[in-house]
Amino acid sequence: MNFRLVSKMLAIVALLIGVTMVFSLPWALPSMGWRRDLPRPEVFEQSGFIGLVGSLVVSFLVAGMLFWFGKDARGELYRKEAMAVVGLSWALATLLGALPYLFHGTYRDAEQRMTVADALFESQSGFSTTGATVISDLESPELVPHCILFWRSSTHFLGGLGIIVLFVVLLGQGSAGKAMMRAEMPGPTKEGSTERMQHAAWQFALLYCLLNAVLSIILWFMGLTWFDAICHAFGTMATGGFSTYNASLGHFQSAAIDYTVTVFMVLAGTNFALLYILLFGAPRSINPRVNQAFARLRYVWSDVEWRVYMGVIIAVTAMIVVAGMYHGSFRPETGEASFGAELADAVRYGLFQVVSIVTTTGYGTNDFDVWSHFGRGLLLMLMFVGGCAGSTGGGMKVIRHILFVKILGVELERAYRPNVVRPLRLGKTVIEDGSIHNNILVYFALILAIFIWSWIALVAYEPDATWAATASADAAQHKLIDSASAIAATLNNIGPGLGTVGATRNYGHFSEVAKLLFVVLMMIGRLEIFSVLVLFVPKFWRNR
Amino acid sequence: MNFRLVSKMLAIVALLIGVTMVFSLPWALPSMGWRRDLPRPEVFEQSGFIGLVGSLVVSFLVAGMLFWFGKDARGELYRKEAMAVVGLSWALATLLGALPYLFHGTYRDAEQRMTVADALFESQSGFSTTGATVISDLESPELVPHCILFWRSSTHFLGGLGIIVLFVVLLGQGSAGKAMMRAEMPGPTKEGSTERMQHAAWQFALLYCLLNAVLSIILWFMGLTWFDAICHAFGTMATGGFSTYNASLGHFQSAAIDYTVTVFMVLAGTNFALLYILLFGAPRSINPRVNQAFARLRYVWSDVEWRVYMGVIIAVTAMIVVAGMYHGSFRPETGEASFGAELADAVRYGLFQVVSIVTTTGYGTNDFDVWSHFGRGLLLMLMFVGGCAGSTGGGMKVIRHILFVKILGVELERAYRPNVVRPLRLGKTVIEDGSIHNNILVYFALILAIFIWSWIALVAYEPDATWAATASADAAQHKLIDSASAIAATLNNIGPGLGTVGATRNYGHFSEVAKLLFVVLMMIGRLEIFSVLVLFVPKFWRNR
Repeated sequence: MNFRLVSKMLAIVALLIGVTMVFSLPWALPSMGWRRDLPRPEVFEQSGFIGLVGSLVVSFLVAGMLFWFGKDARGELYRKEAMAVVGLSWALATLLGALPYLFHGTYRDAEQRMTVADALFESQSGFSTTGATVISDLESPELVPHCILFWRSSTHFLGGLGIIVLFVVLLGQGSAGKAMMRAEMPGPTKEGSTERMQHAAWQFALLYCLLNAVLSIILWFMGLTWFDAICHAFGTMATGGFSTYNASLGHFQSAAIDYTVTVFMVLAGTNFALLYILLFGAPRSINPRVNQAFARLRYVWSDVEWRVYMGVIIAVTAMIVVAGMYHGSFRPETGEASFGAELADAVRYGLFQVVSIVTTTGYGTNDFDVWSHFGRGLLLMLMFVGGCAGSTGGGMKVIRHILFVKILGVELERAYRPNVVRPLRLGKTVIEDGSIHNNILVYFALILAIFIWSWIALVAYEPDATWAATASADAAQHKLIDSASAIAATLNNIGPGLGTVGATRNYGHFSEVAKLLFVVLMMIGRLEIFSVLVLFVPKFWRNR
Repeated sequence: MNFRLVSKMLAIVALLIGVTMVFSLPWALPSMGWRRDLPRPEVFEQSGFIGLVGSLVVSFLVAGMLFWFGKDARGELYRKEAMAVVGLSWALATLLGALPYLFHGTYRDAEQRMTVADALFESQSGFSTTGATVISDLESPELVPHCILFWRSSTHFLGGLGIIVLFVVLLGQGSAGKAMMRAEMPGPTKEGSTERMQHAAWQFALLYCLLNAVLSIILWFMGLTWFDAICHAFGTMATGGFSTYNASLGHFQSAAIDYTVTVFMVLAGTNFALLYILLFGAPRSINPRVNQAFARLRYVWSDVEWRVYMGVIIAVTAMIVVAGMYHGSFRPETGEASFGAELADAVRYGLFQVVSIVTTTGYGTNDFDVWSHFGRGLLLMLMFVGGCAGSTGGGMKVIRHILFVKILGVELERAYRPNVVRPLRLGKTVIEDGSIHNNILVYFALILAIFIWSWIALVAYEPDATWAATASADAAQHKLIDSASAIAATLNNIGPGLGTVGATRNYGHFSEVAKLLFVVLMMIGRLEIFSVLVLFVPKFWRNR
């Protein structure tokens, strides 16, 4: 292991984090952090400001030390080092990102300040774009100052950016990436693939920033303050889910905002290569025909993954709406509602929640825990679907599910025709890489193993009292299913789960050990397993 | 597809079923069907007798028709035909086995006679050695005559026999079989492998019958009537789980019986090739050293699968006992118990239940639904483990889990050393068959897919009223976890699950559609997926 080279690259991450912290400082000024429907703040948020300054000083110091250690770095970045960089930089980001909460002493609830485990959870939840929180009251600036809240949303922005870049540069070599990599990827083709990938990474990063800016402006036009608009744009485009209100996006009670965010969540869950082509066209050198607007649309539509992604959203929404109408889940508690009004609500809340879960954002506008069991079960399954490959969405990615089903079909035929070899097809393209078959199965196997073992560990360790703490005494009866949903929601970077971690709850009442388990799961899910797991293999660290 | 050849082989199955029905007839005589603690029957069970006679006439007629159609059969049994024979013979057995319940009009509960779906469920549950039942009162001869009850247990015997034979002859070529197939398998080696396999099948069938007889005699010595002894021996050695009492084996309230059955359940879940060598030694021509009693024991102990199987039983029992003592799950409801007495109960009930679940038998001596959530979760996980390959146990089989973990380890190393190729090792043996890697992953993938899709289908279709029917109105709150356990318990051929299908309940209150779903799942689980799924592939039936 070339530690010096790894150290040098980690220094860049620490530097980037320190720089980003600077942008949170202004929101400590009076009235800068104003939120709609809440009183305009009138004092300078001194303790939050000092906490942030302390954190950025530490980040810069760490960056300096890492750079000093790695200044004589030699050699190339091999696969092993690349994996170490990915895993360790994420871990470093989590540690540094937790400092502002600790230095400020942010309150988890009215009485309790955040512990180290809380801060790590909140930081990892931000960087992994999960959006699960331990903070039960976000709306009181005395408990959580605006500058800390802005830092919290900034971790989403950084995490989404990191994934978009990492995916293309490094993870793009993984199972989902290989299937998605196409000749039309932007960037000059004549140079080697490394240059093309770096070029693409820059393009996608710019596109990501652009979409964040566009959504912020739209939300501002819709009546949000700049603070709210930027924070929610960060949460949406990174498919994160941190809000600045306790009721999440449901706070605004606005169908227009709901639908706008829905559209941008769908975009955030779409392959950025597709978005790039849709907006700017493919480079002429690669595919000259894909330059007219209509041809671009048709090109996006011809993408199998995107079609299935949209198909899943529409199909599951339809099922949720039908089941919800049947069970009266969307009927107002008091008073009457016409069939039309009820249907409109069902579509609005159902579509929002389905998109929010499938893209792994985790915003909420409706308490889905009061939906029918079928609806809740469907959402639990949906947590494992995830966005498209090459998006900021987490989860297992749509492409893997498509290939998984195709592989099972091929294997079923092989059971009675062992000598027939059929290549995997995606639309009209034949996937020539033979290792995809194995990689997809291994990915499913690892997710299954991690899910099962984490689940039983959580059930074993977490006392029943955790359930009784926030609800009626018999809420612990749902320990098995709630725990499963908590694991699913963190492993797939969603945020809210069922029951005690449902849309109206948070993760604050879990034990310290459970929170640390969630921290690891969020990281495993975000980095697609391998870059995290290898860090725990002793052989990995030995010199070759 | 060579239909005539398939038909000829199915005829043998129908004939075997008809012949087996004959053995149920005598139990209709007064006092033959006597059960301990129940009044000795004094009348001839006319309606049950007539039902059985009708069923066996139909079976013989079907056998004759199938034989007539297949009399000109030509050609060899290729893989396709072999799969069709396995799948169809199981389906045929289920249909014929359901007739006695229907012809007699057996009562599901005090008011309701069994429907067609009920009878198919009970029949499939018997043949697949699941042991799930729809009958809520077994102890009243007016509702369920002894001869019908004996037929019910006979289906276990036939199912276990069928699996032992099928496994060696046909399924032995599957993923678990290949790993377990060893040179020491009994039977002459000089002939081709087909003859050796047929020889082994006969040996194992005899061993299976012998163990059934031995256990029957032991149980009779322990004070059971012959009726009880034979029925419970059938249920044990086939890892089935049908009892003749409502309280299952818990009825006898005897530690000696519990431990005896525990030992025989462990044997039933052990690879029959190992049992054969343990009892009779390996043929001298193959391994002359494995003939002394001690050498035989050491040979069994050197089997990796068997060691893991015993390790799982001991480890899970220890966890259940510790968790149970901590939560007071084994404390008597009234009165005091010394620590020693409580521990003895915990070990007795804990071990019995763990063995019952891991071998997929499903007998009960204690209501595990009142155990801690950890205990219940552990049992739910355990349902997927199953017995050893080459046993009558269902589930996924221990060997597959061992290989699964090894494969994940190999793949984790491949993530950072893509060019290193490591063979799979099982103890000192290197598994040379490269397709095992893929086959194991595909098997897990298929089980996962079938489990998930059946679960959501059951949750979607089954009304909440099913839960309210047998328990308090809010029992439907556990719909998600109960449904998952019902799918797990049928797919893995266990029997009881959690909540509404728990140890003290049954499957009678489910809807007809759900019961048919369970019928298919039990068959899929028992025949290791492929032989059942291919029946639904239209291409499978076309001529090559």
